[in-house]
Amino acid sequence: MRFSGDPTVFGNLPLDATCEEAVVESLHNRKYNGYCPSVGIKEARQAVADYVSTPTSQVEAEDVILTSGCSHGLEMLISCLADPGQNILLPRPGFSLYKTIAVSLGIRVKFYDLLPERSWEIDLQQLESLIDDSTAAIVVCNPSNPCGSVFSEEHMRDILTTVARHSLPLIADEIYEHFVFSGFKYHSFASLSEDVPILASGGLTKRFLIPGWRMGWIVVNDRHDALSEVRIGLQKLSTRILGPNTLVQGALPRILRDTPDSFYRQTIDYIEENAQEFYRTFRELPGLHPVMPQGAMYMMVGIDMDSYPEFHSDVDFTERLVTEESVFCLPATCFEYPNFFRVVLTVPKEKVTEACQRMRNFCEHHFQPTTVRNGNGCA
Amino acid sequence: MRFSGDPTVFGNLPLDATCEEAVVESLHNRKYNGYCPSVGIKEARQAVADYVSTPTSQVEAEDVILTSGCSHGLEMLISCLADPGQNILLPRPGFSLYKTIAVSLGIRVKFYDLLPERSWEIDLQQLESLIDDSTAAIVVCNPSNPCGSVFSEEHMRDILTTVARHSLPLIADEIYEHFVFSGFKYHSFASLSEDVPILASGGLTKRFLIPGWRMGWIVVNDRHDALSEVRIGLQKLSTRILGPNTLVQGALPRILRDTPDSFYRQTIDYIEENAQEFYRTFRELPGLHPVMPQGAMYMMVGIDMDSYPEFHSDVDFTERLVTEESVFCLPATCFEYPNFFRVVLTVPKEKVTEACQRMRNFCEHHFQPTTVRNGNGCA
Ligand SMILES: Cc1ncc(COP(=O)(O)O)c(C=O)c1O
Ligand SMILES: Cc1ncc(COP(=O)(O)O)c(C=O)c1O
Repeated sequence: MRFSGDPTVFGNLPLDATCEEAVVESLHNRKYNGYCPSVGIKEARQAVADYVSTPTSQVEAEDVILTSGCSHGLEMLISCLADPGQNILLPRPGFSLYKTIAVSLGIRVKFYDLLPERSWEIDLQQLESLIDDSTAAIVVCNPSNPCGSVFSEEHMRDILTTVARHSLPLIADEIYEHFVFSGFKYHSFASLSEDVPILASGGLTKRFLIPGWRMGWIVVNDRHDALSEVRIGLQKLSTRILGPNTLVQGALPRILRDTPDSFYRQTIDYIEENAQEFYRTFRELPGLHPVMPQGAMYMMVGIDMDSYPEFHSDVDFTERLVTEESVFCLPATCFEYPNFFRVVLTVPKEKVTEACQRMRNFCEHHFQPTTVRNGNGCA
Repeated sequence: MRFSGDPTVFGNLPLDATCEEAVVESLHNRKYNGYCPSVGIKEARQAVADYVSTPTSQVEAEDVILTSGCSHGLEMLISCLADPGQNILLPRPGFSLYKTIAVSLGIRVKFYDLLPERSWEIDLQQLESLIDDSTAAIVVCNPSNPCGSVFSEEHMRDILTTVARHSLPLIADEIYEHFVFSGFKYHSFASLSEDVPILASGGLTKRFLIPGWRMGWIVVNDRHDALSEVRIGLQKLSTRILGPNTLVQGALPRILRDTPDSFYRQTIDYIEENAQEFYRTFRELPGLHPVMPQGAMYMMVGIDMDSYPEFHSDVDFTERLVTEESVFCLPATCFEYPNFFRVVLTVPKEKVTEACQRMRNFCEHHFQPTTVRNGNGCA
């Protein structure tokens, strides 16, 4: 039972037929076989602009750059915004790609903390203390991988106020946009600020369940022309690999326009049900502290390491879990956050139940109450 | 009349139905929507290995890395083989992307000359004189953009002998592989050497006439384990943007296996006919010196600048040509080779005839015989 970040591996979450039909149409059109502008074809960029625009954040085709997946968008953004020797601020826990990209470019990274006890809100005071003269940008990810958290509007406004104070641009990884459980509301960062220059990155990967198609985008939400140089830089960088597959670009307008709401709802309901089942189970398991997610596809679970003295770390814990019970979860050390592990919520229902059972076995087998272990009655 | 490097723009050179059918099959298969290994899916890599292997250069799936077009492959190769401060040797005239990539990475470039009077063979003596302790790799392009030349087996063996003497790896841009006119034979560099480590880059872009699909590859032809570190580096780099579109990956085995020979032949015959018409015309035009191509999609034409005293340069010449006759050709300054321009050979027949006529007008209008101009009878 491999729980990976790919929602398509088990076949239980198929893509919507709209995507398939749109690609066939694009193919038979025969207009999308040639080179296109490296930032993408106009109609596809306009389709993204229409898709992400809100009443308070209007963008046009020229504000959109199409990329080979969100990863490629993030790579372009980080290399365009920060010079070697400068630093960028990254969330902890957070998606490891940010650091990988930055380090490979000689850009330093500093981590700001997300607080599990506050549904993974940002510790803004600490974030602010990290900013220095060499800080080039702040990366935020909402909804979050690995936390499954969804920021409230209020918290987002606080983040934006903090960032505005330092006149820094925000890189908003919004690959999980709209991916929120019932009762929560998704806001894009761009829709909540008129001052902070925001570079958002999204794509078809998660919401449309087609990561392999490698269709992502960057949306430049410029404010007071703060990003005119960045625009030029991004345009230049885009010429390096000449944009994403044109067949999918040709299909993009139809995909974004015609995918029915019921498709999105179904996916999210499915994942939310899984989240609840995992959460109910883990809450009862000794020495585990799940944090109920609000969106995306993941849940973080804290491990009370004192109660599992056989294991040195979350890495050790998850390794033994896969060896003994064939349940594979990523240790949160992968996200710079030890003593947690991440559960993926896209697995088929029957596997959820089975995994819960095996986790129960595992925990009951290895858990050692700290009082008993200390043996001196003082703990 | 825009003569660009995109063979699809006029619609006269459509893709083969095999490509379309293979993508539809791949789509309906529903196995190619998810993430795949960043170096590509096994079957697709194996298909490339089978496609490029020759009796003297056998490679396997693990020697192949799939990339977002050949551009992406070249970017990975250059950044993996050379460190900032080192230098790489590039052909002159040559495809401008090599320099763009290198410079953006802080890698220095040195140009070795191709000799028009020897059908654009490499000036090997000069090439050798450029090699120093900081030289990290040599880039060769065959068949060539912009020259349309195809190296003979003998010349390729001479190149390989020279390179072997300096124990340097060769980056072989073979995006135009097999794209050779009647009477010429294509050899891959890898098939002619057992000693030189060769990193070849190719793809579907040119031969299959689908540049927008962004499917390229790197083939690692290792020799005496000289490339084991490079393999690791390439694997790491591939994780950055996670490989090309999976639908096309899924289609790749069928495309490479089932595209009929007649398709390739038709394309090449078409282009060769155009080459002949252009060549015949240009040879007769005063002050122009076309070099008959042997493959690829281009022809270089020398301009006797003394005979066109109104123009300062090839850039000037081609600018006026587009202004006055609406015929757009790239000045070869774009390829680091002044006083030439490049003609693209993929245009529809009727446009070739029309372009020839307009070029004739243009040249006859602007040409000034040097003797008359000098006026002293000595020229
Ligand atoms: C937070 C986050 N950003 C970006 C990505 C990369 O998305 P893509 O596959 O579109 O490159 C992922 C994928 O898991 C992710 O979780
Ligand atoms: C010599 C050469 N190499 C590489 C490329 C890039 O190919 P791709 O479109 O597959 O990135 C081209 C495109 O014109 C080319 O002429």
